[in-house]
Amino acid sequence: MFNYSAKVKLHHTDAAGVMFFAHFFYLAHDGYEAFLETRSFGLKRILQQDFLLPLVHAEADYRAPATLGDELTFEIEVTRLGETSFTLSYRVVNQVGQDVAGLKTVHTAISQSTRQPIPLPPNLKAALQPA
Amino acid sequence: MFNYSAKVKLHHTDAAGVMFFAHFFYLAHDGYEAFLETRSFGLKRILQQDFLLPLVHAEADYRAPATLGDELTFEIEVTRLGETSFTLSYRVVNQVGQDVAGLKTVHTAISQSTRQPIPLPPNLKAALQPA
Amino acid sequence: MFNYSAKVKLHHTDAAGVMFFAHFFYLAHDGYEAFLETRSFGLKRILQQDFLLPLVHAEADYRAPATLGDELTFEIEVTRLGETSFTLSYRVVNQVGQDVAGLKTVHTAISQSTRQPIPLPPNLKAALQPA
Amino acid sequence: MFNYSAKVKLHHTDAAGVMFFAHFFYLAHDGYEAFLETRSFGLKRILQQDFLLPLVHAEADYRAPATLGDELTFEIEVTRLGETSFTLSYRVVNQVGQDVAGLKTVHTAISQSTRQPIPLPPNLKAALQPA
Repeated sequence: MFNYSAKVKLHHTDAAGVMFFAHFFYLAHDGYEAFLETRSFGLKRILQQDFLLPLVHAEADYRAPATLGDELTFEIEVTRLGETSFTLSYRVVNQVGQDVAGLKTVHTAISQSTRQPIPLPPNLKAALQPA
Repeated sequence: MFNYSAKVKLHHTDAAGVMFFAHFFYLAHDGYEAFLETRSFGLKRILQQDFLLPLVHAEADYRAPATLGDELTFEIEVTRLGETSFTLSYRVVNQVGQDVAGLKTVHTAISQSTRQPIPLPPNLKAALQPA
Repeated sequence: MFNYSAKVKLHHTDAAGVMFFAHFFYLAHDGYEAFLETRSFGLKRILQQDFLLPLVHAEADYRAPATLGDELTFEIEVTRLGETSFTLSYRVVNQVGQDVAGLKTVHTAISQSTRQPIPLPPNLKAALQPA
Repeated sequence: MFNYSAKVKLHHTDAAGVMFFAHFFYLAHDGYEAFLETRSFGLKRILQQDFLLPLVHAEADYRAPATLGDELTFEIEVTRLGETSFTLSYRVVNQVGQDVAGLKTVHTAISQSTRQPIPLPPNLKAALQPA
């Protein structure tokens, strides 16, 4: 489990006074990037190698609104690690422990040069194992 | 079926050279706003009344990358219209007819003043009926 | 003079009920991309050649708020075309002709491979001439 | 002087491989919000009172590109505190001390209810004084 913290900023909110739903996906991905770095496998390093990890699926369930100044924690976990794809799950709680949202992203690997699917590189699989 | 067109702009793309996955949700919501307006029920009017339509779920399946300059069409349909919520489905195709992505958003109604769930207002339900 | 139209969407607005100031820069750049395309010199083509046009300066004056559903027109003009840089000016008016904002962006040319400044390529200079 | 740190995330970058220019304005505003909170005057509190602080001007000079994974520090200072407006200046340096950008934002005060200009509220002026 990796925890990523993000504060709700003015530009995250909309005229209805709450965080716009799509921003949760950005913040989740920010957390995923921070998570990869703790495994010494940052996206920067990935972009310099010969593969990419495009998303094939993303979803979110929204349970409570997030408003300006809220302190959100994204609890991130690798919930599936297959041969050709992996799934991350995110539970989002706010500063009073309220369950705000749950998200899931599914990632595959492709070759940067051919743009064709490839098996997950072994060093990436190792990096994604439970700590 | 309502068609919403959007061109992939530089700020939609990322260092991997393709549209960042979360932008599909923004563009889908832009299309939903345009769709509501064709039904004379724009979000602006909604914000001035006593209800809001928060999302409780959003999801996307990504099938092909979108790159700078691509002309995307979001084909939007109300695929479920219940008593307390409705679902919109979006099929995204590019300028050569390729199936780029499919999205779904689920919306409920709440009272602006109490922030409690309410049944879908009758005039909204009428507006969301198939044309 | 090139006109670019953009509607204020929910995700452009913030909890203060108006368009967040930074979004004007996104929309202005969207307009710049559309303008370049009318000159047969889209950013996509530029990215495929050996140069880039990074901004060295951007500024905006805000004169009236933009709110959800407003129809903004960005009137875009090349106001300076030098040997190594050019300046675009944008006047933003809304659907009732009100002066909402004025922006300016200054662009230079660099080589994609060396990342060093280069003179503006002649075909770009030709494309940026008043029509 | 207040320092705000931000890491360049994938969604900040574009197909040219660098942070899109407009994102600097978001991050600067994020820093401004964090700065106000250290003065016990967060935007959330402001939105609950009867005034708003709309920007009338924003500008940026870009001196070096920011790329994925860069650690940016926004050094924020109140460089002018007038009767009806104030100016914030931001110097952006990266993890190796390189001068990446300089920004300025000018804010005025308006009444939330009348949307008319008002003098800067005394408690805000006090909060913005050099520490």
